[in-house]
Amino acid sequence: MREPLMLEKVRYCLSMGGKGILENVDVRIEDGRIASVGGGKQRGDEVMDCSGCILIPGLVNAHTHSSMIALRGLNDDAPLNDWLESMWEIEPKLTGEAARLASELAFLEMARYGTTACMDQYEAFEAARAAEKAGIRMANGPALISKFAPPEERLDQTREFHDLYRGNENILPVVNLHSIYTNDDETMAKAADLSKELGIPLHVHCSETREEVFSSRKVTGKLAVERLDANGALHEHTVLAHLGWAASWEFNRIAEARSSVVHCPSSNLKLGTGGFFPFRDLKAKGIRIGLGTDSAASNNSLDMFREMKEMALVQKGQYWDPAACRAMDALHAATLGGNSILRLNGGAIEEGRIADLALLDIDPGILPLRRENLASALVYAATGSMVRGTMVHGEWIYLDGKDGNGNDISERAREISGELERSFFRE
Amino acid sequence: MREPLMLEKVRYCLSMGGKGILENVDVRIEDGRIASVGGGKQRGDEVMDCSGCILIPGLVNAHTHSSMIALRGLNDDAPLNDWLESMWEIEPKLTGEAARLASELAFLEMARYGTTACMDQYEAFEAARAAEKAGIRMANGPALISKFAPPEERLDQTREFHDLYRGNENILPVVNLHSIYTNDDETMAKAADLSKELGIPLHVHCSETREEVFSSRKVTGKLAVERLDANGALHEHTVLAHLGWAASWEFNRIAEARSSVVHCPSSNLKLGTGGFFPFRDLKAKGIRIGLGTDSAASNNSLDMFREMKEMALVQKGQYWDPAACRAMDALHAATLGGNSILRLNGGAIEEGRIADLALLDIDPGILPLRRENLASALVYAATGSMVRGTMVHGEWIYLDGKDGNGNDISERAREISGELERSFFRE
Repeated sequence: MREPLMLEKVRYCLSMGGKGILENVDVRIEDGRIASVGGGKQRGDEVMDCSGCILIPGLVNAHTHSSMIALRGLNDDAPLNDWLESMWEIEPKLTGEAARLASELAFLEMARYGTTACMDQYEAFEAARAAEKAGIRMANGPALISKFAPPEERLDQTREFHDLYRGNENILPVVNLHSIYTNDDETMAKAADLSKELGIPLHVHCSETREEVFSSRKVTGKLAVERLDANGALHEHTVLAHLGWAASWEFNRIAEARSSVVHCPSSNLKLGTGGFFPFRDLKAKGIRIGLGTDSAASNNSLDMFREMKEMALVQKGQYWDPAACRAMDALHAATLGGNSILRLNGGAIEEGRIADLALLDIDPGILPLRRENLASALVYAATGSMVRGTMVHGEWIYLDGKDGNGNDISERAREISGELERSFFRE
Repeated sequence: MREPLMLEKVRYCLSMGGKGILENVDVRIEDGRIASVGGGKQRGDEVMDCSGCILIPGLVNAHTHSSMIALRGLNDDAPLNDWLESMWEIEPKLTGEAARLASELAFLEMARYGTTACMDQYEAFEAARAAEKAGIRMANGPALISKFAPPEERLDQTREFHDLYRGNENILPVVNLHSIYTNDDETMAKAADLSKELGIPLHVHCSETREEVFSSRKVTGKLAVERLDANGALHEHTVLAHLGWAASWEFNRIAEARSSVVHCPSSNLKLGTGGFFPFRDLKAKGIRIGLGTDSAASNNSLDMFREMKEMALVQKGQYWDPAACRAMDALHAATLGGNSILRLNGGAIEEGRIADLALLDIDPGILPLRRENLASALVYAATGSMVRGTMVHGEWIYLDGKDGNGNDISERAREISGELERSFFRE
């Protein structure tokens, strides 16, 4: 463990906690945690001048598929089914080393843009090696898709993944149930049992498309959330990504079951899935809400700052009400919400919390800046490119253009990209 | 005029013209124009290595209010009428030097983010001085608001502005009619006559809100476009910004009149104005379509890359069809569309066109990159922060962190911002 670090005279510190926005404050980091906010420095502290910076909790990308960055920009703008087919076609090649390299590229992008943790669903074993290298926190697990792969095998792999990373601070095992339309009811029930047995999240795409919801209704009489519920898969560990086509009585069940939801506004718009993620209604019911970019194939950026803006804009737009989702709501989803869904105690800058942080330059693109418009500036004007440093558990995984090992992050990204291009498009 | 410049070995050149995407191509600039694409260099040419870069036509922000950047983040998330009131309240102070400084800050941001021209509506005389300083092209004119200011005075000022800048390459006079709800019919008719007489654009907010459209219908029996039409204000010089609440028969009239339209997706969402900018229908009718950020108070960024993504996402989302607006459609609106609306011959990288260009680094955030996903990368993953240089009429108005005079653009932005903060918030 490194020596204690004093982030000195932080110009603006968005605590997301009881202290609100602090100005010109010292934030001390020790043993991977926030040791003090506003306390003095101690002998031996490394000191970093932050008088030109904004400090915020690191952002959590609560729904993504890291390796799919290899497919960024592939067949964009095609109708949904054509696009999906082009994904299914190339994905069998996205395994092993290719998947690991692609995940590394995604994690470098996340690190560079202020993201400290993500909930992933893709090639878990390879992604975990990439996450450990990049220093980012990642929740993941082998994807259950009974339509294509024997569920028993994937359930066993989930146990194996869990055994491998149990107690690890950075790699967080989850049961990854792909969706209701790629799994039979028996698999859903087994996935639900396993997540309860191991006490880990059950991460599932749910109510993403009309087709998914209405096909289910036609065949089984149940909508998507109802279908999960009927299989015991709606419980306090459940994390529902997308939720664009759920019915109001389903929201009530989600609240009763204490399940979590993740909004992916850019991906939903880009794939033209229609629907309506009912932020205001879900918030009113006290449901935990996270925010995700989805994959770089359907976004196509992993920049959570852009995603926060998209969330706020989409919600204001769909409710015809600028107050339907405020800048602070988007920040909450991306910090406290995501941390809570990943069962991390980050998301706020308070003593004792894990030191997962993002440090931003006061870039001209967010001026004029004052305390009163700080949240606005972060959500509506900032991008990940304004991030100067990203810290996980007290260690910089990105700082001034370099990764945690001091290597140039752009050079490494170009190296990986070259490898991927050779693997996929220039055989 | 500077010596000829050879942009050598441009890795990807998005011509937006008949040549499509060119690779490893030389683009030669002379006398403010594109002298050759793919031709050789000549003795005495200044040479710039662009082998790590993407060259695209400079982006045109076809609807904005530059000075309002001073109000960025003011009372965000408030209901529309509250927000508008807070704008009206502070705007009387946004004149003279404050307006000029604010416009300069906006133009620096535009320049830094690859924007080469804009259609503005705010304090035209002050903004023109700022635009000349920043080197950006700007269309503007005194705003006609008969509800608050005597229209004859503003019409005279429009003539004065026109006389002052007639023939200027950078400052393009327009008749700025604020809207149908802030002007009486007589003023609309006079504005229309003046724009026809001088042969300059008639720039007007139109069909932005339900209230505007239905109040007009209630009082006069006419929707917003119909109202303009009845006053002779729908003609080939007319530029309609927003158009979220127009009826299908109004689209037909716009097409017949050969008027132009400008989409402002972020602002419409952020203000929760509802409505539906019918891109696919307007395109099918052959109507000229531009793209604008609106002001930094209602966006809050002036980054046209982000706006292109928002346009494509909003259109895919509202038509439930990923093909409803493709990456190339958004690029077209931001380049050829905007240039056509401003009556500039830029928007494509072809011999003889004005050299209004944006040069981007191949940033890790858009990798993997290949010819096939270049348009996708620019629209869905890039941001203005990836711009390395912005050229207007053959001169760099932004290059590697500096403005056209070689001054650090961030320092100047901070200086201006400090001045504005003192003027508005710390008296």
